[in-house]
Amino acid sequence: MIERLCVIGVGLIGGSLARALRDAGHVREIVGASRNAAHLQRAVELGVIDRFDTDLASAVQGADMVFVSVPLGAMGAVFQAIKDTLADGAVVTDGGSAKASVVTDIGEAIGEVPSWFVPGHPIAGTEQSGVDASFSELYRDRRVILTPLAETDPTAVERVRSMWEAVGATVTEMDVTHHDEVLAATSHLPHVLAYTLVESLARMSEQREIFEYAAGGFRDFTRIASSDPVMWRDICLANRDAVLNMLERFNHDLASLSTALQAGDGNHILQIFSDAKSARDGFAE
Amino acid sequence: MIERLCVIGVGLIGGSLARALRDAGHVREIVGASRNAAHLQRAVELGVIDRFDTDLASAVQGADMVFVSVPLGAMGAVFQAIKDTLADGAVVTDGGSAKASVVTDIGEAIGEVPSWFVPGHPIAGTEQSGVDASFSELYRDRRVILTPLAETDPTAVERVRSMWEAVGATVTEMDVTHHDEVLAATSHLPHVLAYTLVESLARMSEQREIFEYAAGGFRDFTRIASSDPVMWRDICLANRDAVLNMLERFNHDLASLSTALQAGDGNHILQIFSDAKSARDGFAE
Repeated sequence: MIERLCVIGVGLIGGSLARALRDAGHVREIVGASRNAAHLQRAVELGVIDRFDTDLASAVQGADMVFVSVPLGAMGAVFQAIKDTLADGAVVTDGGSAKASVVTDIGEAIGEVPSWFVPGHPIAGTEQSGVDASFSELYRDRRVILTPLAETDPTAVERVRSMWEAVGATVTEMDVTHHDEVLAATSHLPHVLAYTLVESLARMSEQREIFEYAAGGFRDFTRIASSDPVMWRDICLANRDAVLNMLERFNHDLASLSTALQAGDGNHILQIFSDAKSARDGFAE
Repeated sequence: MIERLCVIGVGLIGGSLARALRDAGHVREIVGASRNAAHLQRAVELGVIDRFDTDLASAVQGADMVFVSVPLGAMGAVFQAIKDTLADGAVVTDGGSAKASVVTDIGEAIGEVPSWFVPGHPIAGTEQSGVDASFSELYRDRRVILTPLAETDPTAVERVRSMWEAVGATVTEMDVTHHDEVLAATSHLPHVLAYTLVESLARMSEQREIFEYAAGGFRDFTRIASSDPVMWRDICLANRDAVLNMLERFNHDLASLSTALQAGDGNHILQIFSDAKSARDGFAE
């Protein structure tokens, strides 16, 4: 049970966690915090949070759990703002899509990576953003990855794990670097490809007409290009090395597909497409 | 009204057209044809076709409309097989995803591009294939592109147009080359990217684990990689030049994104992502 939860950044991710913890009866009071009073007021009206504070330092006072769900580029400033007013025994965790950068940010803000910080990442979300898009079921049957460090207090990890399990998620732990590589592959690179393709087509002169003839497959393929651009810029920058590695790997494979196509090598192309279909059918049931 | 429709290749595309025309009361008799008696028997059991013939030459006899929906690599052989037994006044059309190759194939089979052939392409489909996946509503509110040539008989075009309108589709006409460029951009390139990415990840040693952490966005993005590999190999080969052109354009844009990421140029990245989001939000309503 959480006595007082402070959610910093009450959008899709933070708002959905607040809703879900309340529905699960796992929290007594929820304080929302960010620099935007209008957004926070909306979150109160929606019943997502009980009250809010636009001053982060006072917002976290007395909270036993703090969840930071702001774009990765804003993490450092948040840690800086809250470090001196956190309650004794408070646990801080986050929802950032890359973990090495967050660990670096908190290390720089505090002077060392504190034992009470548990880096986390719920593998959930939609292309929507903002508190209006938040919903209580977002984390049900989804995975949450925690990436504790050697210095992380095991009881802090347990409290964060219980929080996520209370909202129906399955929690696993992995190494920070490994997390960042896996997510670069399955999430960050696909977003880069979708954004690049849509922007590329939008610049073609026939753009209006082109999109008119886009069928269902294209809509699904490009859905992630409707995601929040600021959030995704931050993710790419924060996880730059892993994303660049994946881009290099992908470019290599795309070049070999192009070569096969240029040569009219149908067998090679069929092999790639068939292997992809088996893999995709396999993981999508 | 079609007196006797012959559908050559009774899968998702051909089967759905047969179902829809029957439901619309726009056809009196439907004959299915292909080399696979078991598939055709299944189509009879499902009520998609009235009867079948595994000999294409006799299957088309007496049909006033012939719809060819086989993989692009099989088009030439079909035209060769049916050219001598078509009824006088019969109209032939197809559902191929690339049009220049089909026009070439029929020209080679007949000796010239015949006035009774109307190249066509319904912009519809799912990642499923086979007659079991066919359904009557597939073409409702979808677009069908016809690419008639100078030698095409306008009344043949009108009969094909009526057929598609009877099943709820909106028919537009465009030039063969332009069709192939537009579809390379919105359909063929996205399939190549999705297949390549999934195959690339599947080869990474952590593949099982990687796919375990794939969220909803990845599932949508890679849905088209579950499409029929033979059909898509054929499409890529048939529309090779346009696909290679699009690949080159995409590679250029992806390289410039990589350069921006390498340089940590957040403004450039944000511009690309924001432009993509506007375009995507625009066409997806």
